[in-house]
Amino acid sequence: MIIVLRPEATEAQVNHIIDKIKALGLTAHLSKGSERTIIGVIGPEDVLRVTPLEVFPGVENVIPVLSPFKLVSREFKKENSVIDLGKGVSIGGKEVVIMAGPCTIENIDSLFEIAREVKKAGATVLRGGAFKPRTSPYSFQGLGKTGLKMLKQVGDELGLVTVSEVMDLRDVGLVADSVDILQIGCRNMQNFNLLKEVGATKKPILLKRGMASTVKDMLMSAEYILSAGNFSVILCERGIRTFEDSTRNTLDISAVPVAKQLSHLPIIVDPSHAAGKWGLVPALAKAAVAAGSDGLIIEVHNHPEEAVSDGAQSLIPANFFNLMTELKSIANAVGRKI
Amino acid sequence: MIIVLRPEATEAQVNHIIDKIKALGLTAHLSKGSERTIIGVIGPEDVLRVTPLEVFPGVENVIPVLSPFKLVSREFKKENSVIDLGKGVSIGGKEVVIMAGPCTIENIDSLFEIAREVKKAGATVLRGGAFKPRTSPYSFQGLGKTGLKMLKQVGDELGLVTVSEVMDLRDVGLVADSVDILQIGCRNMQNFNLLKEVGATKKPILLKRGMASTVKDMLMSAEYILSAGNFSVILCERGIRTFEDSTRNTLDISAVPVAKQLSHLPIIVDPSHAAGKWGLVPALAKAAVAAGSDGLIIEVHNHPEEAVSDGAQSLIPANFFNLMTELKSIANAVGRKI
Amino acid sequence: MIIVLRPEATEAQVNHIIDKIKALGLTAHLSKGSERTIIGVIGPEDVLRVTPLEVFPGVENVIPVLSPFKLVSREFKKENSVIDLGKGVSIGGKEVVIMAGPCTIENIDSLFEIAREVKKAGATVLRGGAFKPRTSPYSFQGLGKTGLKMLKQVGDELGLVTVSEVMDLRDVGLVADSVDILQIGCRNMQNFNLLKEVGATKKPILLKRGMASTVKDMLMSAEYILSAGNFSVILCERGIRTFEDSTRNTLDISAVPVAKQLSHLPIIVDPSHAAGKWGLVPALAKAAVAAGSDGLIIEVHNHPEEAVSDGAQSLIPANFFNLMTELKSIANAVGRKI
Amino acid sequence: MIIVLRPEATEAQVNHIIDKIKALGLTAHLSKGSERTIIGVIGPEDVLRVTPLEVFPGVENVIPVLSPFKLVSREFKKENSVIDLGKGVSIGGKEVVIMAGPCTIENIDSLFEIAREVKKAGATVLRGGAFKPRTSPYSFQGLGKTGLKMLKQVGDELGLVTVSEVMDLRDVGLVADSVDILQIGCRNMQNFNLLKEVGATKKPILLKRGMASTVKDMLMSAEYILSAGNFSVILCERGIRTFEDSTRNTLDISAVPVAKQLSHLPIIVDPSHAAGKWGLVPALAKAAVAAGSDGLIIEVHNHPEEAVSDGAQSLIPANFFNLMTELKSIANAVGRKI
Repeated sequence: MIIVLRPEATEAQVNHIIDKIKALGLTAHLSKGSERTIIGVIGPEDVLRVTPLEVFPGVENVIPVLSPFKLVSREFKKENSVIDLGKGVSIGGKEVVIMAGPCTIENIDSLFEIAREVKKAGATVLRGGAFKPRTSPYSFQGLGKTGLKMLKQVGDELGLVTVSEVMDLRDVGLVADSVDILQIGCRNMQNFNLLKEVGATKKPILLKRGMASTVKDMLMSAEYILSAGNFSVILCERGIRTFEDSTRNTLDISAVPVAKQLSHLPIIVDPSHAAGKWGLVPALAKAAVAAGSDGLIIEVHNHPEEAVSDGAQSLIPANFFNLMTELKSIANAVGRKI
Repeated sequence: MIIVLRPEATEAQVNHIIDKIKALGLTAHLSKGSERTIIGVIGPEDVLRVTPLEVFPGVENVIPVLSPFKLVSREFKKENSVIDLGKGVSIGGKEVVIMAGPCTIENIDSLFEIAREVKKAGATVLRGGAFKPRTSPYSFQGLGKTGLKMLKQVGDELGLVTVSEVMDLRDVGLVADSVDILQIGCRNMQNFNLLKEVGATKKPILLKRGMASTVKDMLMSAEYILSAGNFSVILCERGIRTFEDSTRNTLDISAVPVAKQLSHLPIIVDPSHAAGKWGLVPALAKAAVAAGSDGLIIEVHNHPEEAVSDGAQSLIPANFFNLMTELKSIANAVGRKI
Repeated sequence: MIIVLRPEATEAQVNHIIDKIKALGLTAHLSKGSERTIIGVIGPEDVLRVTPLEVFPGVENVIPVLSPFKLVSREFKKENSVIDLGKGVSIGGKEVVIMAGPCTIENIDSLFEIAREVKKAGATVLRGGAFKPRTSPYSFQGLGKTGLKMLKQVGDELGLVTVSEVMDLRDVGLVADSVDILQIGCRNMQNFNLLKEVGATKKPILLKRGMASTVKDMLMSAEYILSAGNFSVILCERGIRTFEDSTRNTLDISAVPVAKQLSHLPIIVDPSHAAGKWGLVPALAKAAVAAGSDGLIIEVHNHPEEAVSDGAQSLIPANFFNLMTELKSIANAVGRKI
Repeated sequence: MIIVLRPEATEAQVNHIIDKIKALGLTAHLSKGSERTIIGVIGPEDVLRVTPLEVFPGVENVIPVLSPFKLVSREFKKENSVIDLGKGVSIGGKEVVIMAGPCTIENIDSLFEIAREVKKAGATVLRGGAFKPRTSPYSFQGLGKTGLKMLKQVGDELGLVTVSEVMDLRDVGLVADSVDILQIGCRNMQNFNLLKEVGATKKPILLKRGMASTVKDMLMSAEYILSAGNFSVILCERGIRTFEDSTRNTLDISAVPVAKQLSHLPIIVDPSHAAGKWGLVPALAKAAVAAGSDGLIIEVHNHPEEAVSDGAQSLIPANFFNLMTELKSIANAVGRKI
């Protein structure tokens, strides 16, 4: 922690700050410059992070030196985390994992049909929403428990790993019993009690970035899950909110290399929710693999015209199949494999 | 709903769309322009809102005409909603309601002291956090139940209305039993299950705007609460996330008149979380009252240097007192009253 | 400047950095913490600001301590700058200066009529565009020289100070000869050569904030003008670009107190371009005065239905008159005067 | 253009609007829905775009149907534009064009050395700044005319196409005489007079996206150049300003497919300015090629520690060489060629 003092700071003010630092068990290191005096604080920053040094008289600015996250950081663990997803699939290694399926689970026949198509194209994880976060209370809210059962049945029968969102912390047990990966949606990225609950399970967690969250915020949310004992966290970039209105959100492709620098956790990209339009999905999916993403989660629907949600951003199986062909070549080009 | 067709759309494609519209029980209205053909859809838009018309062949763009919110809208209710907060205080009328207190409830003595100060200055609502949403799992998470008891005791003894955040839907009953107003924090604005839970209570709800949410998004979240039966919702502008880094968030002061145009619900402003620095709070508070805000929620602490959270943005009682004097004059200037 | 080293930085790397610092005539100050070693650099930061210390091996992060602006800063000049605008009007003192008029100068009769109305309501500065920055090359680009003559004639006859935008650096002389205040539009805030040109005049400059510029960026642009010898700069907040779509831009009301803390220059607010809708202008104008703005610039048109530009955000004279009445009371409430 | 009326709009108000539409030579098409009446306007939208229909009594909302750009649009020209850059290089076809070089031209030896390295790696265009837009007036502003001469000498000798920024419209002739491609920097994307000036040359123009500009805004700026007679415009995505602070800007990778859908013009990506950190440049460059970018512009410096600007984001030749190897494979994977 660096404390920059105002030019007019008095000696009494400086001493008051140094006394506070000492009282917290830390060491203060005074450095008088030509225009500013600076106090460097030596010792663990956490105790200072919650002390409002900004309000001490004479203080101009307080600058943290260390990142606030620990368990998720590259410093804590140098090598990439490889997470076992079950059914012979793992993420974070050489393999780029493709997750695909409908936005919402609608019925067992449709789910089976889509699942067979995406499997044939090379996907190893089946996505499908049973509990849906809808901005309108009047929209269809998902099949719930019934949807989860369908997902489990299809996943088991076809040997596909399954992923579905859990929105309500009372449902964590239920969802954990039915699916292989628990998804935390972007609107719940800072629902800290939900993070603690999924942290208490042993299931892999797919943590989607919030629309107004920095990559560091996402890592802090992951820290909640790891600190609760669950190290199997997969980060997911899915677009942030900006002024650009050609797309539903702005895919922050830089999040992939940034997260890789800061953390050992795998990161995947959701081009469907970022774009909001199926015609843009292939370009974003290809960009993600080229940028080093460990996986993709893509919405696929066999009859987008009839989809109960997100039809506009869903690929039909034929387009998904063509995309997978290109993705395989790109994965090879960057030393990965699909 | 307006459907704009591509220049190259075929007649078969147009008919396919019109058939779909009719199948949904709506009327299609074709209009051929010089450069584009347009289909106007007549009838309730909700059924179309969930139909992905964008994926129908020949469609270039789909433009909704109506707002998706109903119960919260000015159209539904022309006059301003005035909400009874208990203890003789109501919000949404001529009175500008001032809510003040510490970010976090720390101990009974400190809470009493701050409460007496803010009451003396003219505040009628006491704020205090018992359950705290902290970005770090290692930060103090609040006194919980014990904190709520302290808040109730101080509120009852001093005759102040109380407000505190509920983060976990399992705590809704507990918080509702202890405080007069339930606060939904900005990170939970789209925690839809929590919204349904507080919608099932009879308590006034203070709904804070999410950091990446438009005013319309905030109204949709309010719609969740109203549609669950609870019409006592107070909106709260508290800053959105932008590239500007001089402030913690960017206070969107326009949200006040925009919300007033679109909705009958009262709206207040939180200058403390928007600014993140106490020195900026008075200017923002004054702006809010001048812009027509129905209230303010301000962090006040008697010893910011020792505050366990948000010390940097808390006013000391003396500064709060001075601010209140100015706010009273501004309220008069715009035909309101503090 | 603070240089934070990577945990694995070698002694050779540290020495290489220190050698560089010494070679630049500065002093390095090493401080070994428990988790990081830090180098504080003592001496003028400017020489370091252009040295890419981030690329030196072993460096994790480089943190500037001082602001990059000088002449515009509060440190350089403690008291508020009061700028003489001519015709008995000055800005930056107790008086809140109201600038009003049409977006675009259309003809002499209309300009006279609007000018008389805004003067009667209490405005002392007449705005009017002669050179218009239009996003479309097919839109009306302004009357140019002819418009400037009209503005001069009306301003002289009615005793109103005049302000108009200069877009092209070849027109600086022409515009400076015709109007009292030269406006730099938001799209030209970082047109550095234009800034230098207007800095070479003796005219007051109204510098509008860019849509993607921080308050600090705006101050750096003002620094260009001051460093060219012209200290008569008026800052102008006019909204930044965010995801919120209810308004044309998001008025960053915090910019007023932030600029006041960092700089001695006066700052005004443009509620018309921020809102983009006349119905929102009064609330924003009132907020601005309450927040401490030194002035306002408001679009007024006598026949908005016929306005050649920005009709949607122009007040009619009657509404402007009512607004002025309220603004006078608010100015009084905050110890100012209109 | 669609005009949505308020529910309470009177017949007189509707007639007033229809009269206006007819007076403009257009046809009005009335459609009464269950909740709203809508007027569709048939005929060229341009005349309406500048008419402030929003202020007509009874109007709730005005929705444009057509895009405001013409010459740049896919509708105007279906096939991709291929632009001849001279020296045997063209852009917009199968070849992905790599532009590389130092941020600022520093001296002839250094420029030659860097140019030889990037040519060896496969770049066909040499970038180098002679006029530099610097946020601080105290920073080095470039070698100007001398720099241009060096660039021309090196380009001619090595057979590399050259690109350099023109900031001042008085310099357009000078720069056009020295370099093969004129660059418009992001801060000048809406410097409309500069756009007209470069539109009057016959040189290819590299138009960088403004930091607060949508893709559509960028296309409108390109429209200025095309409408002045110069159809050789290359768009450039270089990051937009968002709240994310791990990168200098947020690369909007979606801009590539969005621009390709809307326009026939080629688009390239600048990963260096987007990232601001050289370690992130390779991932973004690879993403861009995978997403369909027609080229890249990358900062390369042989001694970043000594670079006078942007050293932190410059690749050293060895890293650039490695990146090029990967880029070639990715280009192949998406059916392109480097």
